[in-house]
Amino acid sequence: MTEYAAAYQGAPGAFSEDAARAFVGATAALLPCWKFEDVFLAVESGRAAYGVLPIENTLAGSVQTSYDLLAERSLTIVGETVHRISHALLAPRGSQVAMLRQVLSHPVALAQCEGFFRRHAQLEPVPVYDTAGAVERVVREGRPEQGAIASRRAADVYGADVLAEAIEDHPENYTRFLLITTPARAAEAAAPPRAAAAGHKTSLVFLMANRPGALVECLGHFASRGVDLAKIESRPLRGRPFEYVFYLDLIGDAGEARVAEALAALAGSTAMLRILGSYPRDAGTSAARVRPGT
Amino acid sequence: MTEYAAAYQGAPGAFSEDAARAFVGATAALLPCWKFEDVFLAVESGRAAYGVLPIENTLAGSVQTSYDLLAERSLTIVGETVHRISHALLAPRGSQVAMLRQVLSHPVALAQCEGFFRRHAQLEPVPVYDTAGAVERVVREGRPEQGAIASRRAADVYGADVLAEAIEDHPENYTRFLLITTPARAAEAAAPPRAAAAGHKTSLVFLMANRPGALVECLGHFASRGVDLAKIESRPLRGRPFEYVFYLDLIGDAGEARVAEALAALAGSTAMLRILGSYPRDAGTSAARVRPGT
Repeated sequence: MTEYAAAYQGAPGAFSEDAARAFVGATAALLPCWKFEDVFLAVESGRAAYGVLPIENTLAGSVQTSYDLLAERSLTIVGETVHRISHALLAPRGSQVAMLRQVLSHPVALAQCEGFFRRHAQLEPVPVYDTAGAVERVVREGRPEQGAIASRRAADVYGADVLAEAIEDHPENYTRFLLITTPARAAEAAAPPRAAAAGHKTSLVFLMANRPGALVECLGHFASRGVDLAKIESRPLRGRPFEYVFYLDLIGDAGEARVAEALAALAGSTAMLRILGSYPRDAGTSAARVRPGT
Repeated sequence: MTEYAAAYQGAPGAFSEDAARAFVGATAALLPCWKFEDVFLAVESGRAAYGVLPIENTLAGSVQTSYDLLAERSLTIVGETVHRISHALLAPRGSQVAMLRQVLSHPVALAQCEGFFRRHAQLEPVPVYDTAGAVERVVREGRPEQGAIASRRAADVYGADVLAEAIEDHPENYTRFLLITTPARAAEAAAPPRAAAAGHKTSLVFLMANRPGALVECLGHFASRGVDLAKIESRPLRGRPFEYVFYLDLIGDAGEARVAEALAALAGSTAMLRILGSYPRDAGTSAARVRPGT
């Protein structure tokens, strides 16, 4: 019944496909999806066992649609992985940089290569829905004046030429991906044998009472128990302009005593609270590990 | 020397142009800019007296590029205004919905009209850089199968037909815009005669020490003095993966005693703190006013 090990957004060759392979293995069957919502649908319907979702990029920031879907739907986070993002300029076989006029890619990828476009003023950036899909299109259409920005690997997937590598402005370019599944499968697969050398992380979403000091009260439940926060994110509440829901990532497992106590206290300070999942932490998200110099 | 009253991102007919008119008047000379960064450049160079910047939308959330530029550059926020966003389907004269195959617009506008695309399955959404620019293009190219999603007013600006109005999924769709200028001009124009019925708001950005409980300590300086927070936003720190800068909007003027005290205390808890501006608050950003039912 479950046809695919994992569903991801984008075309084959997408960065999300790399992340999916890191989660479920190099030979597992993967389902490419057009939209993030389709990833949720594939997992909810049982068509795929797991879904893979980009949640934040160290240059572009949070992936807002992913946050919204985590709150609106009922899937559980069971893993995270951090991938280095490096962009290559690809084009139909035989094309050269000097022949190109248009370069297609996802708007975030285009924005991360601004310096490259400044150095090649004849190139017009053209936004499309995904990076690998842009490569598929320029190879299919075969116009020597149209290139695409995507992973180096997408060149092999679609038979494109690599005209330039590592064209991003900033090398510290990482995307954090989440592995999501149904609560039933998460319970079945609980206590996985895989060791979590970096400990665990717990993600949650809450809606607080709209009164002065409410956010400090909510966060204070963690601080007073020595529970560290890895990330806080606010998103607008639909239908209630200028009110927000908050997403927190904390260091620790929801089953640990001090984390469980903090969550129980938080439930008393909020109008809505949902634990999105506890999962082994990817050491790559530890700021200390990758911070240069200090 | 100052040729324009205000610079804004987008083409004439853009929602940002409406906001600019609300700030500087219906007849003032406005400078349309291709990118947000160009708005900053126009104000910094003295070409425009003020810049207008969308900062958050009640459905799509924060405008991440605007936040980054506020921290990276040195302009000051001197005003805010909230505008209702309503999307219309526009097309070259004589076209009809049944003839359309492609609809061009900004990705956020396309996402806000998902229901419309579901009801008209023959329409392919095509992402482009701005809403009004999409109308300009479909009118210039004059292909009856290509439409655009933008404000109703853009139809008048470019001579397009209005095929449908209010096609957005959700009516509670507002964008908050900021008015920015140079610190010198802000000082000159200080204490404006215009009354601020809703009081003032202050925006700031800070980088906190990377240790457990640091965010609670920072926010506690406001809570303990009864200073209310209107918004908190985190953005990645370039070159330091998985570290963040925080943006706060608080209710009050930086010159008020309890706000000034809180800011002085915050300076002691942070590695970097910059006040982005104190400005009259638009009553439309008060959640209570527009909240339905409660």
